[in-house]
Amino acid sequence: MNFFDLVKKRRSVRKFTNDKVPDKVIKKCLEAAILAPNSSNLQPWEFYWIKNKNKKDSIAKACFSQNAAITAQELIVAVSRIDTWKRNKNLIIEDYKKKKKYIPIINRYYNKLVPILYYHDTFGISNIVKKLFSIFYNLLGFFKPVLRSPIYKHELFEVVTKSTALACQNLMLGLVAEGFDSCPMEGFDEKKVKKILNLNRNCHVVMILGIGKAAKDGVYGDRYRIEKNLVIKKV
Amino acid sequence: MNFFDLVKKRRSVRKFTNDKVPDKVIKKCLEAAILAPNSSNLQPWEFYWIKNKNKKDSIAKACFSQNAAITAQELIVAVSRIDTWKRNKNLIIEDYKKKKKYIPIINRYYNKLVPILYYHDTFGISNIVKKLFSIFYNLLGFFKPVLRSPIYKHELFEVVTKSTALACQNLMLGLVAEGFDSCPMEGFDEKKVKKILNLNRNCHVVMILGIGKAAKDGVYGDRYRIEKNLVIKKV
Repeated sequence: MNFFDLVKKRRSVRKFTNDKVPDKVIKKCLEAAILAPNSSNLQPWEFYWIKNKNKKDSIAKACFSQNAAITAQELIVAVSRIDTWKRNKNLIIEDYKKKKKYIPIINRYYNKLVPILYYHDTFGISNIVKKLFSIFYNLLGFFKPVLRSPIYKHELFEVVTKSTALACQNLMLGLVAEGFDSCPMEGFDEKKVKKILNLNRNCHVVMILGIGKAAKDGVYGDRYRIEKNLVIKKV
Repeated sequence: MNFFDLVKKRRSVRKFTNDKVPDKVIKKCLEAAILAPNSSNLQPWEFYWIKNKNKKDSIAKACFSQNAAITAQELIVAVSRIDTWKRNKNLIIEDYKKKKKYIPIINRYYNKLVPILYYHDTFGISNIVKKLFSIFYNLLGFFKPVLRSPIYKHELFEVVTKSTALACQNLMLGLVAEGFDSCPMEGFDEKKVKKILNLNRNCHVVMILGIGKAAKDGVYGDRYRIEKNLVIKKV
């Protein structure tokens, strides 16, 4: 199917049939998900494919037992993390070394800039240090462009969640390409979901995807978008 | 092209040729972008297509004059907003009324829940009120699942940026489907970009897309992903 038809065909499906989704379809779509672009290639995402029946039931309950969760054949929990950067940047560096492309600029990028942006301690001391430093650093902004964020932990979360969302869109479109449907849910009790998956405070649950084949009454109404000139602006 | 080949073909391109990108291609891809799923259908995004030469140069400069910005034929600035929800929820309600589908649950959702989640004042008083309220509300969490966020403004920003990222992925894949390339940039001076586009404090610049046709040396090296079992987990 043409890409633009695929985008049009994708709708958030709130009710699924009993048709099973083959494991290889989920795998293929997850593998497409993680090819999305992402900040500094640090791949700050995790995808939990919930196969355990008890866990699946508990997560559906944490999604307020909404139809999209209860009737879903498969559930995938997309998670963004601010604590996997260190492992991942080391793996990236290893790969550069293996390919004999580990040049000084890569070293500086991953061993100087990335740690400055990504390092955070539990007590928020790094927040204060970074903020103080940025006050002076931003004075340079009068003379030239400067990188002003992420400083705070919550700004870093916005960065990693952004990358994870890009991956989620690949995942959802992949499912449509394979003849299946999904519902991206943001209405859930994050604390409960994190407890079920044993996730720490360095994780955010970005969305929970209910997956299956759309029931006949699975899409609630026609797609509505506000007038496009309100959001697409030529300047 | 098959969707999965499209995903594989999309690479972040850092250097573009002099080939022009037809306006109709950009339009088509932007229109595909805004069909992405998004929180409560509030469509919290804006896409600034930079046609003015001076603005384009200034924005490229604010991207630290990186190749992907300087050589780009077109620049699009993707913005997320926490202040368009009121206008948009009214448009959504109007549409429901026009379709004679304005049922009580829709009214409650858009006129009660959405304002509680999205309302924020300049001074952060709403942050405090919401936090205090949530302390009591979350006690219910001992008995049943509860929605614990967004409370703070920065949590709301994570929500709107997430939706905008989903749209950006559609946009980037659309460009590949049409035979063009892009580079999603997050390295820019946000303050300067916001000044150029006259954006207020209720906006975040999600990413800036450089667009064009990839130069021969436009992709810097092979794609690298860490071992997939590190991020895809069956539980």
